Amino acid sequence: MQGLYLVTDRDLCGDKPLEEVVLQAVRGGVACVQLREKNVSTRFFIHEAARIKSRLAPFNVPLIINDRIDVALAVGADGVHVGQDDMPYAVARQLMGPKAIIGLSVETWEDVEKAQVLDVDYLGVSPVFETPTKTDTKGSWGLQGLSRIRAWSRHPLVGIGGLNRSNAAEVILAGADSVAVVSTICAAPDPCQAAQELSAIIQSALARRSQS
Amino acid sequence: MQGLYLVTDRDLCGDKPLEEVVLQAVRGGVACVQLREKNVSTRFFIHEAARIKSRLAPFNVPLIINDRIDVALAVGADGVHVGQDDMPYAVARQLMGPKAIIGLSVETWEDVEKAQVLDVDYLGVSPVFETPTKTDTKGSWGLQGLSRIRAWSRHPLVGIGGLNRSNAAEVILAGADSVAVVSTICAAPDPCQAAQELSAIIQSALARRSQS
Repeated sequence: MQGLYLVTDRDLCGDKPLEEVVLQAVRGGVACVQLREKNVSTRFFIHEAARIKSRLAPFNVPLIINDRIDVALAVGADGVHVGQDDMPYAVARQLMGPKAIIGLSVETWEDVEKAQVLDVDYLGVSPVFETPTKTDTKGSWGLQGLSRIRAWSRHPLVGIGGLNRSNAAEVILAGADSVAVVSTICAAPDPCQAAQELSAIIQSALARRSQS
Repeated sequence: MQGLYLVTDRDLCGDKPLEEVVLQAVRGGVACVQLREKNVSTRFFIHEAARIKSRLAPFNVPLIINDRIDVALAVGADGVHVGQDDMPYAVARQLMGPKAIIGLSVETWEDVEKAQVLDVDYLGVSPVFETPTKTDTKGSWGLQGLSRIRAWSRHPLVGIGGLNRSNAAEVILAGADSVAVVSTICAAPDPCQAAQELSAIIQSALARRSQS
């Protein structure tokens, strides 16, 4: 898990179809798409996930489903992202199988410690900064918290929460392997351009980090 | 699928823990429990389903999960109930396996016709009568609609919607094999007694029907 990671938000897409926002963002350089839906029917979610999966295939960009292992299994998604209120990681791994990408959100240091023995594919460091798109959190990690996790954890880290062009580089330099954004792409007038700009910043920071 | 079928509604249980309402209802004669949750986290849903499953085991009463195949798989529930906006039946069967109980709601005659070729374990005839606990329906079947489905369908029928002591017998006599209730048990001052009364009415009507 490295580079720019998109988490979808249907409401933030406004008039634009979510599927189009995703495709534009992928054309702009998004390396991973997490489909997150909270207020749609299971059938709608499955149809949407199947359509997006087929459109991502030519780009070789994985589709991750937020929370809903049933939807992920139904469409053969590449993986799932689970939070601390979602299915316990061990059960998710059992149902999804050894090849699936499974990411786990960590909101407290205890979450980080517990995750160390798990074969998760990445930790979602959530939130790095305060964000209006997710308010049910237990405070933000900040760059210091992110660095502390980087120094301790054996897992790849995806930073999420309040990330945009102005802070993406420092998040990478603090130890994130990937920068996840929601509104910075979903609410952008031009999702492709937003993804291009973010992706360039992230790649540049990753290069700087590997040289230092 | 025969007899009294309980569909849970957390809100209607009021001050009583849902788990206790279910247990009392099972002591009163409920033959099948469908756990239906719409506004809880996946983790909460799984913990609750696992607890209820272990408490139902001594009674040999199956636990059916509404909509959420992920929750059903996580706890090893006996089956799932899917509506027309939930996972398509064929996908649900594939994920749940051949031994699972899978019920499918039918709201239109087209739904009934499409279900005929499926190996569903029962059809949920929904709603038999208008009900305040489910308002997103396409009209009610009535006793005539239920009889029409009985005459045509090869599947066991579970009637649901507005069912209580005053109409449970006629629903059985019109062709239902099972009577599903929500508020009649969940909102009852004494869920055990409510289940006993309903169960006696249903058993008596089933006996009358088999004699005629």
